[in-house]
Amino acid sequence: MRRKMILDCDTGHDDAIALMVASKHPDIELLGVTVVAGNQTLPKTLKNTLNVADHLGLDVPVYGGMSLPLVREQYVADDVHGETGLDGPVFGELHKKAEDKHAVLYLIDTLMASDGDITLVPVGPLTNIATAMRMEPRIIPKIQEIVLMGGAVGLGNASPAAEFNIYADPEAAHVVFTSGVKITMMPLDLTNTALANMQIIERMEGIGNKAGKLFGDIMRFTFSSQAVNGLDAGPVHDVTAVTYLVAPELYHKQDMFVEIDTNRYGPGYGRTICDANNRYHRKPNATVGLSIDLDRFWDLVEDTLRRHI
Amino acid sequence: MRRKMILDCDTGHDDAIALMVASKHPDIELLGVTVVAGNQTLPKTLKNTLNVADHLGLDVPVYGGMSLPLVREQYVADDVHGETGLDGPVFGELHKKAEDKHAVLYLIDTLMASDGDITLVPVGPLTNIATAMRMEPRIIPKIQEIVLMGGAVGLGNASPAAEFNIYADPEAAHVVFTSGVKITMMPLDLTNTALANMQIIERMEGIGNKAGKLFGDIMRFTFSSQAVNGLDAGPVHDVTAVTYLVAPELYHKQDMFVEIDTNRYGPGYGRTICDANNRYHRKPNATVGLSIDLDRFWDLVEDTLRRHI
Amino acid sequence: MRRKMILDCDTGHDDAIALMVASKHPDIELLGVTVVAGNQTLPKTLKNTLNVADHLGLDVPVYGGMSLPLVREQYVADDVHGETGLDGPVFGELHKKAEDKHAVLYLIDTLMASDGDITLVPVGPLTNIATAMRMEPRIIPKIQEIVLMGGAVGLGNASPAAEFNIYADPEAAHVVFTSGVKITMMPLDLTNTALANMQIIERMEGIGNKAGKLFGDIMRFTFSSQAVNGLDAGPVHDVTAVTYLVAPELYHKQDMFVEIDTNRYGPGYGRTICDANNRYHRKPNATVGLSIDLDRFWDLVEDTLRRHI
Amino acid sequence: MRRKMILDCDTGHDDAIALMVASKHPDIELLGVTVVAGNQTLPKTLKNTLNVADHLGLDVPVYGGMSLPLVREQYVADDVHGETGLDGPVFGELHKKAEDKHAVLYLIDTLMASDGDITLVPVGPLTNIATAMRMEPRIIPKIQEIVLMGGAVGLGNASPAAEFNIYADPEAAHVVFTSGVKITMMPLDLTNTALANMQIIERMEGIGNKAGKLFGDIMRFTFSSQAVNGLDAGPVHDVTAVTYLVAPELYHKQDMFVEIDTNRYGPGYGRTICDANNRYHRKPNATVGLSIDLDRFWDLVEDTLRRHI
Repeated sequence: MRRKMILDCDTGHDDAIALMVASKHPDIELLGVTVVAGNQTLPKTLKNTLNVADHLGLDVPVYGGMSLPLVREQYVADDVHGETGLDGPVFGELHKKAEDKHAVLYLIDTLMASDGDITLVPVGPLTNIATAMRMEPRIIPKIQEIVLMGGAVGLGNASPAAEFNIYADPEAAHVVFTSGVKITMMPLDLTNTALANMQIIERMEGIGNKAGKLFGDIMRFTFSSQAVNGLDAGPVHDVTAVTYLVAPELYHKQDMFVEIDTNRYGPGYGRTICDANNRYHRKPNATVGLSIDLDRFWDLVEDTLRRHI
Repeated sequence: MRRKMILDCDTGHDDAIALMVASKHPDIELLGVTVVAGNQTLPKTLKNTLNVADHLGLDVPVYGGMSLPLVREQYVADDVHGETGLDGPVFGELHKKAEDKHAVLYLIDTLMASDGDITLVPVGPLTNIATAMRMEPRIIPKIQEIVLMGGAVGLGNASPAAEFNIYADPEAAHVVFTSGVKITMMPLDLTNTALANMQIIERMEGIGNKAGKLFGDIMRFTFSSQAVNGLDAGPVHDVTAVTYLVAPELYHKQDMFVEIDTNRYGPGYGRTICDANNRYHRKPNATVGLSIDLDRFWDLVEDTLRRHI
Repeated sequence: MRRKMILDCDTGHDDAIALMVASKHPDIELLGVTVVAGNQTLPKTLKNTLNVADHLGLDVPVYGGMSLPLVREQYVADDVHGETGLDGPVFGELHKKAEDKHAVLYLIDTLMASDGDITLVPVGPLTNIATAMRMEPRIIPKIQEIVLMGGAVGLGNASPAAEFNIYADPEAAHVVFTSGVKITMMPLDLTNTALANMQIIERMEGIGNKAGKLFGDIMRFTFSSQAVNGLDAGPVHDVTAVTYLVAPELYHKQDMFVEIDTNRYGPGYGRTICDANNRYHRKPNATVGLSIDLDRFWDLVEDTLRRHI
Repeated sequence: MRRKMILDCDTGHDDAIALMVASKHPDIELLGVTVVAGNQTLPKTLKNTLNVADHLGLDVPVYGGMSLPLVREQYVADDVHGETGLDGPVFGELHKKAEDKHAVLYLIDTLMASDGDITLVPVGPLTNIATAMRMEPRIIPKIQEIVLMGGAVGLGNASPAAEFNIYADPEAAHVVFTSGVKITMMPLDLTNTALANMQIIERMEGIGNKAGKLFGDIMRFTFSSQAVNGLDAGPVHDVTAVTYLVAPELYHKQDMFVEIDTNRYGPGYGRTICDANNRYHRKPNATVGLSIDLDRFWDLVEDTLRRHI
């Protein structure tokens, strides 16, 4: 049985790759794509998402969502993703259009009409999902699982304390992490190991299709921008959340209590405080990915990219 | 020209009186009533609102909105408003129904379709309005003014630092107060002076219509509950926000910068820090009511109640 | 029996008047004066204290204390007290010297050697006293009472939320207010009513002695500087703490729980959150002065100043 | 030339080992030992320090210091160090006495009289040193370097966010880290690798002197208590700060900006936020140890223990 999922993204380089994988893996049924502000402003992340879908001929509905975080002022990652949010690849004229419905309403309506068999895969700030949870709390028991990219056990990247997706909307993260929904979290510590170095890039380009080519166009750009995080290759953070749905056996993971630091005024704002050593003796609210079998991960990515046109 | 307004309430004793005034004052065009959780949970505040409208034969659409605050855990004022949120009056069978549309969507659609001539009068937590602002920021320049009941220059009532409406959703208040919309705020310091003592109650009951009778049923209840705030009569807080629209000359007021303390972990959470002495030298973002001409206020209330059935 | 007290000050205009009263009231035995940074840096507040004592021939030992607050960066009130911290009066050559002992050690040694009959009267930041309490916690049961000038029930003056003495060292205030010592607090709300207007100034100058003349020289200066707080005369804040020791019957007051907001990052930093309405149902830790009989207060001040040379 | 140092400790198991090394290494001149509350209350940490010195016949003066943290309520590590703070070894009758002088005054006097050639090695909460810095800021340029055990780049142990020594007095840590003194920090990440497993214990016991025997008695106890931190052997945290003075070449380290989270109300309280990736672009204020050559470290410890009686 294919696993039903909604991808919630702020495309973004690695988001684009995540979409490529989610849209073509045979065990995934991608119901829709909801877009949120994050790596860049909403008009840009929406356009990027539509461009990727258009370019690859994806027949998935795309919904624009929240353009601002719940509470804080907007913070985007233009230092990493550039002016467009997806600097690097060049797309042709855009034909694909976003659906009229707001992403938050799409989430609510889809989940309420479901049998509780939909997994949400947010790979950007959690604003869409938190807003949906607050507007219609009855969706909460309808969500099968949330598998997200975000947070850090160790150091952050947006600030010394906080990872970008959580830092960009800590209050939304707080809503999601205290919702009671089963949460699986791919933290920066893990995702920073999923590096598309030149060998990986050439391997994907070697597939010879549009998807492989796009992978290369996207990830070649990240070589320069990732220098800000001290990496010499581009991590495909978001992809690790998607592949978890169909290959959880690739991951080492641990249940723990994760608390979001929502002190808006302090230096820890947006940190995912991970109680890996169980100091609090509180019931775990998240399963945290600790490491991933990279060989099999890249095999899985390659196999899926081959299914594209 | 009548002033177009939407009442956003969490009915509540004084909310009910505010609705009585807003719905019949000749210079007010009450477009709709949006309801939010606050004094009690949403099902209760919605039912209370419908009961009052039904009982008085009001032909105004009522919309249910946010049932939980943006970020914090829910905090209701059952110590003041009782188990139903409107303990005291007894209503008959309820016939009036809430509209299907969510209050947040009603706010967005109505404001977007307007000519910028609608005033919002929130007299509960600001969750509906903040959510609307975040879901569709383009409503912000469409709002003529927000005249709200909430906050305190001096002492709070929900906590020593914070007034209930703000304390119940400080993050929503932060969104609204930093939105750039013209804000007029009726703080606890002022609203606590608008006390319906026994003389006032008997005067309203003396009108002899359903509205006067309901005023009495409602405000007689508050004599006991207000003891928690050290008052020996019931304040009609929310009414002062409605009457401001049609009789601003009754108020002394001052422009100042108002900041919401959104430190979720600290003792000041939810305080409206009012820079009345301009220590920050920041541009004022709110006009704060300092006092009200009570004689003329009660005259205005009585005159309006007489227009009811 | 005379009441033994130690004055802890950051002289300062009103501190100087407080010293004049404390040093000559017949019912007060002023054991010593400890000086702390506050209105200005320690070298300046110490020099000001010595100048006043020297000028009036006071035979009281003066001890220099903490030059920096416990935790925060230094914040001085040069906007109110000027470059010297006591702008206005002109003093001759300074002969009086500070004692060699550090004020904190003087406090510890004096209290430990006492019979528990010494009252501390801090009228500046609470750094000296908090440090003494932490270095030698056994002094705590030895302190008869702390009567302090500081805090605010309503608005602050250093920030919209906080009064200067507390704002200048919130952590020290936290230590003192949680120490268990009997605390009586003269907040800004009360002390701002003790205004030395021109009539008061001329009355004190009319005494015809050095002290009356110095009162005038000091308080005439404050007319200009107090404009920053919207006052048209100079309040003698600190004096109200000294006079309380010998004339408590002049004050209306209320026991309440007072909490210091020590969130270093937030807008409420340094606020004295006063639970005047007992929302917390916590045991009061302070007696807060609400108002003062000003006629009798000024009589007391005049009578005491007459005892000077 | 021997390096002059003062050991500031809260003895404690690993503190005791640190004292053994500091007191006998030929390149260290241990001027004095100052004691602070931390692992246990001050009477206990002082007694433990004296017991170790007495047992090993150390002729070093010991000074009792701060018994409470600067601001926060006391927090001790009895879960790790037991009821006495040094559970495990049994000492004979105690003959050695603490000096009369307070540790803070000893620090001030010694530093002020020095030529700027003294290194402080605090291996407990930083209360003594912070208090000394605040009481006499002129000691700051007199301190050659502070080499401390404390903080964490990754996970904490006292809370998920914070390491014990910093958590036990975050405000003191803030004072020290913002003082401008050259700071070298041995964080939990490094010190948790310096594990005295059974092989190490038997090796030290094999020396055959009192010190080796005491090492065994102490570290055998930690096998049980360290289970709380998920370790199966006892780390000798504090020793790594002492050995750094004489063998810095054993350490990999990195300069970075370290900020203490002093939000008393939040979940990050006491965290050392380490900007290892230079996200803030601020001037480094600390050198942080990243790893240590454990073979040479244990050789150094053994060699030094051999010099004991």
